[in-house]
Amino acid sequence: MKVISFLHQNKPGWGVVNGDAVNPATSGEYPTLLSALQAGKLDEAASGTTGAAIRLADITFLPVIPEPGKIFCVGHNYEEHRVETGRDPTKFPLLFLRVGESQAGHQQPILMPAESTQLDYEGEIAVIIGKAGRRIAEADAWNYVAGYSAYNDGSVRDWQKHTLQFTAGKNFTGTGAFGPWMVTRDEIADGEELTLETRLNGQVMQKTTTASMIFSIPVLIEYISAFTSLQPGDVIVTGTPGGVGAKRVPPVWMKPGDTVEIEVGKVGILVNSIAPDSTKF
Amino acid sequence: MKVISFLHQNKPGWGVVNGDAVNPATSGEYPTLLSALQAGKLDEAASGTTGAAIRLADITFLPVIPEPGKIFCVGHNYEEHRVETGRDPTKFPLLFLRVGESQAGHQQPILMPAESTQLDYEGEIAVIIGKAGRRIAEADAWNYVAGYSAYNDGSVRDWQKHTLQFTAGKNFTGTGAFGPWMVTRDEIADGEELTLETRLNGQVMQKTTTASMIFSIPVLIEYISAFTSLQPGDVIVTGTPGGVGAKRVPPVWMKPGDTVEIEVGKVGILVNSIAPDSTKF
Repeated sequence: MKVISFLHQNKPGWGVVNGDAVNPATSGEYPTLLSALQAGKLDEAASGTTGAAIRLADITFLPVIPEPGKIFCVGHNYEEHRVETGRDPTKFPLLFLRVGESQAGHQQPILMPAESTQLDYEGEIAVIIGKAGRRIAEADAWNYVAGYSAYNDGSVRDWQKHTLQFTAGKNFTGTGAFGPWMVTRDEIADGEELTLETRLNGQVMQKTTTASMIFSIPVLIEYISAFTSLQPGDVIVTGTPGGVGAKRVPPVWMKPGDTVEIEVGKVGILVNSIAPDSTKF
Repeated sequence: MKVISFLHQNKPGWGVVNGDAVNPATSGEYPTLLSALQAGKLDEAASGTTGAAIRLADITFLPVIPEPGKIFCVGHNYEEHRVETGRDPTKFPLLFLRVGESQAGHQQPILMPAESTQLDYEGEIAVIIGKAGRRIAEADAWNYVAGYSAYNDGSVRDWQKHTLQFTAGKNFTGTGAFGPWMVTRDEIADGEELTLETRLNGQVMQKTTTASMIFSIPVLIEYISAFTSLQPGDVIVTGTPGGVGAKRVPPVWMKPGDTVEIEVGKVGILVNSIAPDSTKF
């Protein structure tokens, strides 16, 4: 099952993708995908998506979960990227947090801020949590997964390097794309090898599979849940492989008009264009 | 005005402190302090706190804002602490994020996790945002402040050092205390020098004033709002001075039974005991 969050006629909704249309959840009991996950009622709520189908061409995709409780991102989780960034190996996963506002939906523009020209892509696989837990053992971790999505952990590299902490460069509004949908866990065998490819204007920039991850999804769940609870709708963005723009010679930065695609095998293709950030407050 | 969030007879509420009692907000229109801030109606909602006063002795304090949209913490923002940690000066504020679940209320235990013995205090001044803004100029920044509180940015030092990013060590459940209340901006002149003191079992461990901050509150607001919007109820935890337990010889770690106090001049005293984390899921 593929599940999306969307806007239709300016109203937020969610539903189940069926070909080139979405069957919206209309019961009202679970007004958001997050609320259905929190109630542990995704399957039940999804089976109630009997409203009139809406063509995907007529919706605006939102991030799969627009406002997750927590978004944990993993740094340097593929050996090739660790080497290109010149980082020492670590015994533990490197984690940073993104805030919900830093996200964009499928087919929505990733925003190039006026404050920088160093906007970079990072193709990643996102894991969405389906069940609350603390101190989850690696052996039990798959049971806490609701599903998978593609993620572009868009990064403003000069701001990321302002200090030792990545926070600023990883949290510009509208720089992290999350979508197009969540593929539920039942469609992918636990631990099945998934391909991950990033294309910029059609050119392959990153290409790997989950077999090259340093810390596996169950290990990440065990580590994170040691210090905090994982809650339904929380997201773990599992790291990017080698080939980021910042480490190319010369560096490759995304610019307005570019198109970036993140393709995750058995999940789908997340497509975004780049547009100038015209945010006004 | 001093505003708190609390539990009374297992029901969450918020209200205005009056001596040793709280006048709860009962209109129902703004069920939480966060919702009143988001609506820009704090003064109006607070003037409607005409319900029967409840003695502070009869409530359980919650974190001033139990689930802020964002909690930005500033590292190395006092010169003495920068030097004791051996960090180079930076041109920009060092930022990391805490999640809401990592917080505890006034008089509630700070949780010592089973995973570590290196639980450390960090006395800080918290700034609560009262108005939404992006790209806020330093000169205009005070207008976005709703008020101030004390914060104990409790840190699990070995986990903080697992990798270059502080995330894990700064986000153990129930390790960051936030309270006892928010003192509204009208009670403290913009930029007025405030004292900050941390006491562990009555002994002064940290002592400074805001005059020693490297990046002032308006500079922090300008910097953070350059990359993300600040929203009502967002929190900026403005950094700790020298004297943390980890840098003493020998190191001083908090342990169950200890009492830690953070006193901020013109704000109040945040008091917490330390208890073992018995979280079960």
